[in-house]
Amino acid sequence: MKIAVINEISAADKNADILKALEGRGHEILNLGNTSSKDNPGLLYIHTGLMSALLLNLKAVDFVVGGCGTGLGYLNSVLQYPGIVCGHLLTPLDAFLFARINAGNCVSLALNQGYGWAGEVNLRMMFDAFFTLDAGNGYPQSRSEPQRQGREALNRISESTHHSMAEILLALPREVVQPAINYPTFRPVLCQAAMANEEILSVLEKVL
Amino acid sequence: MKIAVINEISAADKNADILKALEGRGHEILNLGNTSSKDNPGLLYIHTGLMSALLLNLKAVDFVVGGCGTGLGYLNSVLQYPGIVCGHLLTPLDAFLFARINAGNCVSLALNQGYGWAGEVNLRMMFDAFFTLDAGNGYPQSRSEPQRQGREALNRISESTHHSMAEILLALPREVVQPAINYPTFRPVLCQAAMANEEILSVLEKVL
Amino acid sequence: MKIAVINEISAADKNADILKALEGRGHEILNLGNTSSKDNPGLLYIHTGLMSALLLNLKAVDFVVGGCGTGLGYLNSVLQYPGIVCGHLLTPLDAFLFARINAGNCVSLALNQGYGWAGEVNLRMMFDAFFTLDAGNGYPQSRSEPQRQGREALNRISESTHHSMAEILLALPREVVQPAINYPTFRPVLCQAAMANEEILSVLEKVL
Amino acid sequence: MKIAVINEISAADKNADILKALEGRGHEILNLGNTSSKDNPGLLYIHTGLMSALLLNLKAVDFVVGGCGTGLGYLNSVLQYPGIVCGHLLTPLDAFLFARINAGNCVSLALNQGYGWAGEVNLRMMFDAFFTLDAGNGYPQSRSEPQRQGREALNRISESTHHSMAEILLALPREVVQPAINYPTFRPVLCQAAMANEEILSVLEKVL
Repeated sequence: MKIAVINEISAADKNADILKALEGRGHEILNLGNTSSKDNPGLLYIHTGLMSALLLNLKAVDFVVGGCGTGLGYLNSVLQYPGIVCGHLLTPLDAFLFARINAGNCVSLALNQGYGWAGEVNLRMMFDAFFTLDAGNGYPQSRSEPQRQGREALNRISESTHHSMAEILLALPREVVQPAINYPTFRPVLCQAAMANEEILSVLEKVL
Repeated sequence: MKIAVINEISAADKNADILKALEGRGHEILNLGNTSSKDNPGLLYIHTGLMSALLLNLKAVDFVVGGCGTGLGYLNSVLQYPGIVCGHLLTPLDAFLFARINAGNCVSLALNQGYGWAGEVNLRMMFDAFFTLDAGNGYPQSRSEPQRQGREALNRISESTHHSMAEILLALPREVVQPAINYPTFRPVLCQAAMANEEILSVLEKVL
Repeated sequence: MKIAVINEISAADKNADILKALEGRGHEILNLGNTSSKDNPGLLYIHTGLMSALLLNLKAVDFVVGGCGTGLGYLNSVLQYPGIVCGHLLTPLDAFLFARINAGNCVSLALNQGYGWAGEVNLRMMFDAFFTLDAGNGYPQSRSEPQRQGREALNRISESTHHSMAEILLALPREVVQPAINYPTFRPVLCQAAMANEEILSVLEKVL
Repeated sequence: MKIAVINEISAADKNADILKALEGRGHEILNLGNTSSKDNPGLLYIHTGLMSALLLNLKAVDFVVGGCGTGLGYLNSVLQYPGIVCGHLLTPLDAFLFARINAGNCVSLALNQGYGWAGEVNLRMMFDAFFTLDAGNGYPQSRSEPQRQGREALNRISESTHHSMAEILLALPREVVQPAINYPTFRPVLCQAAMANEEILSVLEKVL
């Protein structure tokens, strides 16, 4: 699986913990947001949400790991965009259930609130529970079919309620778009991915 | 404050706990979803999400309390729509921070996972921490101004990324819209509220 | 490992979940307390605490899984006796750390508070994290040696502060001892184990 | 109420948060352990457990707030002594239930694990829920009487299982006793309190 890790500035010092907890699973990891609290520029959740949505809609990655201090800012930010199913994961049980029931493509981590000593162990345990061959198989198994139908309905709702990513990029405030798409480690990945999507590419040519 | 409580069928037996935990605060409560696991029809989170979004966009209520088994299904469902800021609240600390930092208009409760004995006490404590004069005042207070800016940016993003509720109602799959808008206790509240919104009213006349 | 599961009546309906979560690890399980909320007699945490301490002090088992509604009643009860190191485990991270740092011989589970849907999955994940070859190896590893010293000091303290189990059995109130030692599934295991301990055996002959 | 706060070195930097969270309740606070991670000597949980037990058994204080990295080391340490009922409190709900059901005289806080940003808010909310006129009134109220009986049985058990504090002081290893009783801010409080207890006073004269 191709996974992007995109941290905002408030919890950038936890970025190394996330990378370490993702190791050894055979996934390709792209680390595209802040990596230290001293980074300049600092990204806010309004930026990391857009960055995540762009990568997922361009199919540049299969999954995004994001977050913020409590997890709720990034969660609300990334869920403004089409095609996102995002979990708010605090414990391995949350991860176990979210993988099976919701089978989302994004997680929002609480990286300051409740993130103390051994927080990196909890991250690893959550990823152990999340990255499973049982993703989407339902919990309990007897509810597998209605849960699958729920996910499909959610996908169709998402298409009905949102503009396209190209329209969105044109409509968003400049102070949201510019810091996001121009972030140094992110920009080349975005440009490469946009090659395969004419509509977004032509908008990016205008806004970049 | 005018608050709607909208439960899906999976956790409908917790509805009474929610009502009780909201008591004694001087709020007007509208109880508009399932109230018992034996209710027929049963609402799913894809329905309760739309119901919540309609009421909030029509300004029929100031706040919606929703949820599902884990809280993550409803959360993803309601956040498909414009103008929603939704928290995933498990502890009083979550509620304290979400009120101050995000000042949202919706909460998603985990009503089966982790909801055991004394769960109703936890609900009351969360509402104690949430319904506060400090909503939107930031935490810590020194971060009040950037947090306010984040909320405003999120509002603008929400407008840029979503179709209007009228367009959405027309575009949504019938199996999402019909069970939602026709739910017996919900329908009259919706119709009353829609009187003040010509665009949505004219769409409702088509889809009802 | 030889593990006793000893439930009090308040959470006896979770007994089956515990047994299932312990399966497949190659441990020998003795199920010695209440197994259903309809059991008669019902055991209280003051009984299950004594039962646990007897088995551990007689070396009849290596480990005891107990608990109560919140976990705190049983925890305080079992820790009245010598030679017990008991954890209060709510999440896999708790279990991970308790195994490595404290390497105890007993756990107290919260079996009503916070025990909702999928509680049995959480139990399994906690046992996965607890039953590890790394027990007593410390966390972080750099703290391994002082943590080992802490455990040894705690053992010596326990010997200094408590009467012997034989003395304790004689001194305890009758209403604590009798329901505990006479519980049908427990009594034969106790009698068998006491064969190897003359002092306790002679006291049991008086109090049984 | 007279409350002692006794921190070990591992979490001494959280001492200020605890003091602040206890403010404004009309309690007299004695701050008797480490107050900074740079303190020398540093106390371990085997010391703070003994210090807590001495104060409670001498009735020098009504309540002790202790803790360690996870809360489980101090919990096991202080519960080696007679007359202690100690909670392991992580959330306001834990505190609410422990006050009503167990009505203990001691709490062990997790001051590193899970203690992140806004941890001090969680402390305050826990103390809000704990220091209540409802202490010992039971939860739910219908269970008030059996819960009271459980607490009384636990008290009698504690007397039956432990040596007296004077005997304990003589029997404990020197490396446990000396750092505890000689800690600069603690020693005068201990000596003052021991004036009223001839048996302990005479032992202290030997070991001090």
